[in-house]
Amino acid sequence: MEEKKSHLIKLINKLYRYTQSYIDEALKRFNLSSGTYQFLLVLSKNEGISQNEISKRLNVDKAMSARSVKRLMKLGYIRKGVDEEDCRACRLYLTDSAKAIIPEIIIEINKWIDIITKDSSEDEQRDAVDFLSKALMNAKGFKKSNL
Amino acid sequence: MEEKKSHLIKLINKLYRYTQSYIDEALKRFNLSSGTYQFLLVLSKNEGISQNEISKRLNVDKAMSARSVKRLMKLGYIRKGVDEEDCRACRLYLTDSAKAIIPEIIIEINKWIDIITKDSSEDEQRDAVDFLSKALMNAKGFKKSNL
Repeated sequence: MEEKKSHLIKLINKLYRYTQSYIDEALKRFNLSSGTYQFLLVLSKNEGISQNEISKRLNVDKAMSARSVKRLMKLGYIRKGVDEEDCRACRLYLTDSAKAIIPEIIIEINKWIDIITKDSSEDEQRDAVDFLSKALMNAKGFKKSNL
Repeated sequence: MEEKKSHLIKLINKLYRYTQSYIDEALKRFNLSSGTYQFLLVLSKNEGISQNEISKRLNVDKAMSARSVKRLMKLGYIRKGVDEEDCRACRLYLTDSAKAIIPEIIIEINKWIDIITKDSSEDEQRDAVDFLSKALMNAKGFKKSNL
């Protein structure tokens, strides 16, 4: 068990990287990458939140967040609220072109999930999501208590 | 279920990033980061393999691999085989100082696994590792068939 247990991090690392490769390829036609599409998904559920708020939700550092938001604005996928100069705090919104491709982004992600879970039962998938959700809560809890 | 299922990628992404933060902090005292320690672990089990072989095993691109190996050589953790000029193909070995810290790296990783799995039973952990292993095999299979 100890041996198996220590695989957990390696598995998460590797799956993360394979997922990145897939998404980079699948979203190339929208000029999006594994680093940027998540900003659109977060905004699609929380229009009007700030760049700093997105950083927190995605747990990415502020510099990376700034670069991604800048790129997404240049691509015409994100716009900022009127009369706001400082983009760290300003409200961000999806443009119509972002809204138009969000369903396609979700289709690509679901395709990938179907690929990697093709031989797992619904129960196994649900249990894995539950396990990973608990693990993420613990990771968040640890970070909070060590800030 | 569809809703839960789509969380899988988000969970893997987020857990990956929390794990990176933890490891960056925990291995700072060895001048290692979440990007470099894995090279040492792969080498500890496969001394003498090449930089290209490590890239493949970790599924990282060759440029990133070259940067990491260069850094690890500079830090005195990796040495290359004698009489080998081209480091893409040359055999790599751990130095004694790398060998000395590997048990401590493993302790840190196991500490993190204990933190994120603290409220999961042994069975749940084993099932999650099995699920993620299958998912990784499918990801690898997909990549191979789409090269």
